[in-house]
Amino acid sequence: MGKITVVGAGSWGTALAMVLADNGHEVRLWGAREEQMDEVNQSRTNHKYLPGITLPIGITAYVSLEEALQGTEHVLLVVPTKAIREVLANMRTVLKHAVTVTHASKGIEPDTSKRISEMIEEELPVHLLRDVVVLSGPSHAEEVALRQPTTVTSASKNMEAAEAVQDLFMNNEYFRVYTNPDIIGVELGGALKNIIALAAGMTDGLCFGDNAKAALMTRGLAEIARLGRAMGADPLTFAGLTGMGDLIVTCTSVHSRNWRAGNLLGKGHSLEDVLESMGMVVEGVRTTKAAYQLADKIGVDMPITAALYEVLFHGKDVKEAVGSLMGRVRKHEVEAVPNLYK
Amino acid sequence: MGKITVVGAGSWGTALAMVLADNGHEVRLWGAREEQMDEVNQSRTNHKYLPGITLPIGITAYVSLEEALQGTEHVLLVVPTKAIREVLANMRTVLKHAVTVTHASKGIEPDTSKRISEMIEEELPVHLLRDVVVLSGPSHAEEVALRQPTTVTSASKNMEAAEAVQDLFMNNEYFRVYTNPDIIGVELGGALKNIIALAAGMTDGLCFGDNAKAALMTRGLAEIARLGRAMGADPLTFAGLTGMGDLIVTCTSVHSRNWRAGNLLGKGHSLEDVLESMGMVVEGVRTTKAAYQLADKIGVDMPITAALYEVLFHGKDVKEAVGSLMGRVRKHEVEAVPNLYK
Repeated sequence: MGKITVVGAGSWGTALAMVLADNGHEVRLWGAREEQMDEVNQSRTNHKYLPGITLPIGITAYVSLEEALQGTEHVLLVVPTKAIREVLANMRTVLKHAVTVTHASKGIEPDTSKRISEMIEEELPVHLLRDVVVLSGPSHAEEVALRQPTTVTSASKNMEAAEAVQDLFMNNEYFRVYTNPDIIGVELGGALKNIIALAAGMTDGLCFGDNAKAALMTRGLAEIARLGRAMGADPLTFAGLTGMGDLIVTCTSVHSRNWRAGNLLGKGHSLEDVLESMGMVVEGVRTTKAAYQLADKIGVDMPITAALYEVLFHGKDVKEAVGSLMGRVRKHEVEAVPNLYK
Repeated sequence: MGKITVVGAGSWGTALAMVLADNGHEVRLWGAREEQMDEVNQSRTNHKYLPGITLPIGITAYVSLEEALQGTEHVLLVVPTKAIREVLANMRTVLKHAVTVTHASKGIEPDTSKRISEMIEEELPVHLLRDVVVLSGPSHAEEVALRQPTTVTSASKNMEAAEAVQDLFMNNEYFRVYTNPDIIGVELGGALKNIIALAAGMTDGLCFGDNAKAALMTRGLAEIARLGRAMGADPLTFAGLTGMGDLIVTCTSVHSRNWRAGNLLGKGHSLEDVLESMGMVVEGVRTTKAAYQLADKIGVDMPITAALYEVLFHGKDVKEAVGSLMGRVRKHEVEAVPNLYK
């Protein structure tokens, strides 16, 4: 069992650190806030992010990134998309040897349209970066922390690296990891599903019902797959755990931040108020902007993303936007599903 | 606007009769129970199946199948799969002219493995049957009766017939109909999703959490698509409204009978007690048997269906069965999704 450094001490980073500690690894959890890191070391809790959970022995918290990275060959990167480049730049200055970076963040960078693995490759020079792996799937941190059965996918261009990460995580009864070589599809599925979760929250906030939400989710996965295909993903990845699976859990679970944010928007709250009241990052908001720009640039039809973009960034009325998605009645339209995968 | 006869006065038949009446059609609703049909005509309610709903003018209830069918060219068949052949045999004796039969039932016949459209073609001679159409999709009757936005698919080998049915239903703001030529895929998706809903209810009953349920649903759709493909369906249909969409609504909505039955089983109640307490037909139980037989016959791997079959028909312990699906830990397994659509 080796040393692993988890960079990012939010709910997902902490829950994944728990899985690794359960598997017998020596886990170093890095976070920028001293008070929070002290809490982890002294009380074995991370109250703000995983209330009520006692962390296993085997997790040590660090505020110094340099110390946290010393002598580890595996870095698990779990920070908000917005902070990724800054954290990677800091890693660059203190790393003294090559590491495998596995990331478990879900987003796309606005303006550049980059995926997280692309940002990692840009920010870390080759002599510091052995492999990039993505860990993604239907996995609310709150449930993983309770050791409830969870299934995720480890993806990398280098399948040996994906299998090495699978080995790190899969040594217990509750956390199951598959591998998949389609890193593009796995990253895009995890990022883009947050857009549909925001929209699903809105339809729920507007009291549209389960029939409407299921239709929205189905059409949402279709537009994700369309964009993914245009970006070089294997469209079939979107039918798997990191596509359909993650979409379902994010759109239907009370644990989902993106759904909760959408729900509040649907009930008429302003975006500013919603983001402030959440207290945690809502990745879907930035991802909506990135996906809208990307779809526009490469000419992919994403009606749900476009409607959401208008609501979030141009103050369009939520009810009108969702109504226009749900209510338009056009005759003799063939269900567009078969076009997704062609 | 023409006459349409709806055969079957349960919750879904009655809700669809409401849509047709809202569209201005003269709707004849047939049911076998005189007291219930009197209630429809006198109180404009169908209390047992749609509590709290007032039926629109334009629906007239009949106990005589002969009278209900007189002079109508469209029959909407919405009876439990178990009763289909008997009802069709009765229709055969009283029909005097050819009709288009649209069915909105969801099941497969055990032992014969027949789809409902096949049963219709077997029971009605060609001089009485113009076309067979299937109406399916994510559509809880309770929400349709409240006129909440709902999207379904009309499928037929004859696309003109599918479009004619689309025209009958799509003349209002809340009910949207797409067409699809893949009648096999549409029927199988609607029928088989009830198996996964039973299993999803069980995982919820056993308190496995949302991560586990999302994984189960994803793998459930995969095994549905595998069987569908082997039966001649277009596998892409399962990524659409009648596959993924209907699966989602059935596994996640409080309205779902199959989910509720599974949930009670997961909590330790016996199958007999559960079926008795439901008071309505739980199609998934019979469908599990039919799908298990079919998969066995043609050699398709359906682990969830097989586990459920053991629970329902051979008294296997629920916890053990679901645990074996969730908990098995095998190393270096590639996610099997890409095989679904090949």
